[in-house]
Amino acid sequence: MIETKIRVNKDMPKLKDPVFIEGLPGVGNVGRIAAGYLAEQLKAEEFAELFSSHFLPFVLLHQNSAVHVLKNEFFFWKAKKKGQRDLVILIGDSQSIDPQGHYDIVETTLDFLEKLNVKDIITIAGLNVGKMDREPKVIGAVSDPELIKKYKNYGIDFNAGSKVGTIVGASGLFLGLGRYRGMKGLCLLGETSGFPIIPDPKSAEVVLRALTKILNIKLDMDKLEDKVKEMENFMKKIEKVQSRAIRQLISQQMQRPSDEKEEELRYIG
Amino acid sequence: MIETKIRVNKDMPKLKDPVFIEGLPGVGNVGRIAAGYLAEQLKAEEFAELFSSHFLPFVLLHQNSAVHVLKNEFFFWKAKKKGQRDLVILIGDSQSIDPQGHYDIVETTLDFLEKLNVKDIITIAGLNVGKMDREPKVIGAVSDPELIKKYKNYGIDFNAGSKVGTIVGASGLFLGLGRYRGMKGLCLLGETSGFPIIPDPKSAEVVLRALTKILNIKLDMDKLEDKVKEMENFMKKIEKVQSRAIRQLISQQMQRPSDEKEEELRYIG
Amino acid sequence: MIETKIRVNKDMPKLKDPVFIEGLPGVGNVGRIAAGYLAEQLKAEEFAELFSSHFLPFVLLHQNSAVHVLKNEFFFWKAKKKGQRDLVILIGDSQSIDPQGHYDIVETTLDFLEKLNVKDIITIAGLNVGKMDREPKVIGAVSDPELIKKYKNYGIDFNAGSKVGTIVGASGLFLGLGRYRGMKGLCLLGETSGFPIIPDPKSAEVVLRALTKILNIKLDMDKLEDKVKEMENFMKKIEKVQSRAIRQLISQQMQRPSDEKEEELRYIG
Amino acid sequence: MIETKIRVNKDMPKLKDPVFIEGLPGVGNVGRIAAGYLAEQLKAEEFAELFSSHFLPFVLLHQNSAVHVLKNEFFFWKAKKKGQRDLVILIGDSQSIDPQGHYDIVETTLDFLEKLNVKDIITIAGLNVGKMDREPKVIGAVSDPELIKKYKNYGIDFNAGSKVGTIVGASGLFLGLGRYRGMKGLCLLGETSGFPIIPDPKSAEVVLRALTKILNIKLDMDKLEDKVKEMENFMKKIEKVQSRAIRQLISQQMQRPSDEKEEELRYIG
Repeated sequence: MIETKIRVNKDMPKLKDPVFIEGLPGVGNVGRIAAGYLAEQLKAEEFAELFSSHFLPFVLLHQNSAVHVLKNEFFFWKAKKKGQRDLVILIGDSQSIDPQGHYDIVETTLDFLEKLNVKDIITIAGLNVGKMDREPKVIGAVSDPELIKKYKNYGIDFNAGSKVGTIVGASGLFLGLGRYRGMKGLCLLGETSGFPIIPDPKSAEVVLRALTKILNIKLDMDKLEDKVKEMENFMKKIEKVQSRAIRQLISQQMQRPSDEKEEELRYIG
Repeated sequence: MIETKIRVNKDMPKLKDPVFIEGLPGVGNVGRIAAGYLAEQLKAEEFAELFSSHFLPFVLLHQNSAVHVLKNEFFFWKAKKKGQRDLVILIGDSQSIDPQGHYDIVETTLDFLEKLNVKDIITIAGLNVGKMDREPKVIGAVSDPELIKKYKNYGIDFNAGSKVGTIVGASGLFLGLGRYRGMKGLCLLGETSGFPIIPDPKSAEVVLRALTKILNIKLDMDKLEDKVKEMENFMKKIEKVQSRAIRQLISQQMQRPSDEKEEELRYIG
Repeated sequence: MIETKIRVNKDMPKLKDPVFIEGLPGVGNVGRIAAGYLAEQLKAEEFAELFSSHFLPFVLLHQNSAVHVLKNEFFFWKAKKKGQRDLVILIGDSQSIDPQGHYDIVETTLDFLEKLNVKDIITIAGLNVGKMDREPKVIGAVSDPELIKKYKNYGIDFNAGSKVGTIVGASGLFLGLGRYRGMKGLCLLGETSGFPIIPDPKSAEVVLRALTKILNIKLDMDKLEDKVKEMENFMKKIEKVQSRAIRQLISQQMQRPSDEKEEELRYIG
Repeated sequence: MIETKIRVNKDMPKLKDPVFIEGLPGVGNVGRIAAGYLAEQLKAEEFAELFSSHFLPFVLLHQNSAVHVLKNEFFFWKAKKKGQRDLVILIGDSQSIDPQGHYDIVETTLDFLEKLNVKDIITIAGLNVGKMDREPKVIGAVSDPELIKKYKNYGIDFNAGSKVGTIVGASGLFLGLGRYRGMKGLCLLGETSGFPIIPDPKSAEVVLRALTKILNIKLDMDKLEDKVKEMENFMKKIEKVQSRAIRQLISQQMQRPSDEKEEELRYIG
């Protein structure tokens, strides 16, 4: 029994009506890239970490031989001028590896967000549309049809209902479950032809353009591609070892020694 | 830890000895169609929602770009004349995706039904009989052999014991577990050649005919086929994305990047 | 959350230093047959039922159209003469379908056995030895090497350490975990060439001969083959539907509709 | 609900600032061999056992027909001279068979280690590097980069960050999670070309040489190969039956009786 725990490393920040931004790994890593770049460029401050037994049971090795256990991280940023809002940003190494874990992690996070007085949620994800020979669009989904009015002037495509079936994982559940806590949610889906393994900075950029307009924040996009290349190695590393670890866990349990003597080791039930 | 939660959205209805009708997705979607049509035609009122971490972790996107998390819904209807009974109807998007979840959802629902003073249960399901060139029959199963007397005059075939092995999922467990709470249960099984993916309005109709006779309710069946076509798109959507999402969840964990350098990323145990 | 529950249907029997006999389904159904025949011939009295969300989520349909949820059952029998002991017998429809469930069911049962003052345990299982052209032997395993002295004069082969690797499931765990509660355990393994699906009355008979000698009970073995034939249909039914249900549960989740339009339903993460 | 339990069999030892050494089964069984040999040569005393429903549900049969349930064991050893430290050593039959279980077992053990005032952790594991025609090296990983200074003079390679992606299972999690309890952790990874099934005494020896230098303990390595041969049979037995048991559990659930009559046993949903 560990399930999901949030560890606050400093005093809880005192925030005024903050907006929650979620960007966890997923298709094209669009959310992870966009939210990570936002946090970095804003110099947002890390204040809490989330651990879960729904993440794979391993630690990641850094270049300096130090390890860290898989986790998500909470950052906050305080509005600098009128028209801006305080932010709580969630990024991280992993989403749940089992279906039930998504519910556990999202509900635990929503409990935490209530303590921070969060009433607005923006989640970021990638939408795999196969090959594409045009600029990616940003597709929008909302927890409440009323919200479309609020967000319609930011270049977001709100005609996705017929094209898109579902939103899987945290980006969807934060909207669907947050609604029952009175939180209003928007999901920004960046079109991408990428798989989870291939980070898509183009898609992340178009999402960031819409997001920063909504948040009334100016962001220098010039460093995005470089940052993605920097992140890319680390992200690939996580995803490689993750898929490798799963295969290892499975094959380890399935392997059969060649010298096994059937006569000596019989199954009993 | 969310498991299964029931959220009551209005005051709990005051019902007099109500009958509980369950129709969740399953073979031929017989239960879902029959119970859904009953609730709609009776203009039954929604009063509670059931969520579960045993449902898949995603939200469904509506045509209007709004999302909702997978759920089951409780409706009630009050008897209009003598000889009728108050009803509690359960329909929904999904059943549990893991074996243990069925027990959790059914027990949580039975706790809730006890508060509503439910003592009679009727569950609806499909029975896959392969190809069929005759009218589908309604097969009956009961929580207690005494009940056959009560239900024998409604055209229900109670000689199914040798033909039918088991009733899987909620439709069976409500009978098997409800019995230990003093609830008397009938399961109506509509013969169908359909798979879960293909809604079978014919089968739903024969079940509805038996059910409405039992409940002493008149129902206009003319709109059933149309309604099924309406529902069909939505149901297919859920089932498509559900099977797709599962495959994605699996393949995502199994994928192997082509550029992986074996030498650099070794497994450690 | 239901996990495992034991429901006592009558007053708890007052037993004097009873021996616990376990015979649940497994290889050759040896345990199930032997313990079931013992309970029946002794006219032992059922007094409690065990339910578990670690059993498959379905009900079994009886010939009379009544259903029952999968369960295990506790019987008791009081010693009739000097040299006999009171008995608690556990038989049932199923063992846990997931690895963790075995621990849960065995621990819950051990808690219950402590209330009944059980200090001696005898579990019965089959040992698959492939083709065999001789009388099956009874192989013994114990929770404590001291017990071999006590049980060595009943024709039990206690040289199994090198031949047998493990005892899987309830028959093994009752010994391994019961030991930490001060319970002394013997496992009787009947050699069989049968698979779980093929009940092996021969193997059950040799085990019963050893068991009844230990218990100082005379049992008419003449009806055993007939009883097994009777039981066989029911047991096969459970095992068939069980394997079928699992396949259905899996294929249902894996199926892919043929008319799926890839363009319309894209995965989002 | 058993999850993970630690049973203290004697009075808790009073230890002075002890170092915790973990060596559970894994790649090449390097950790298991090294920690097991250390405990044996030091005549360390067993004082506690760890059980978990995250281990496979079976008991192991010893040569003398006695069984024991899968477990891990805690030993302690008191420093004999200046410059040595008290030790707590963990060895055992198995690690968790499911991903979540690793978190549960490690957290339960860390709770226990806090009661023993453990502040330093050394875990031992194997690192599969494929074919090797040189002496295996010892690769080091740490919970905190500061620790490299402390451990750099023991022939440990601390340039592994780029070569090694992750440390899977207990050896990694003790470092990653222990850190949040103020425990400082070192993981010693012995290079090996072995699979889990093939114990690698060479790799264990180089790890032991580094470990004993750190602990300021002299160990006679001459008996290591012999001991490994002794252990080998038992370890192989566990791993064989483990993989066999998993296959059995799976095939048992998947098997399909040949005489099944499709018409008689239809699936109902």
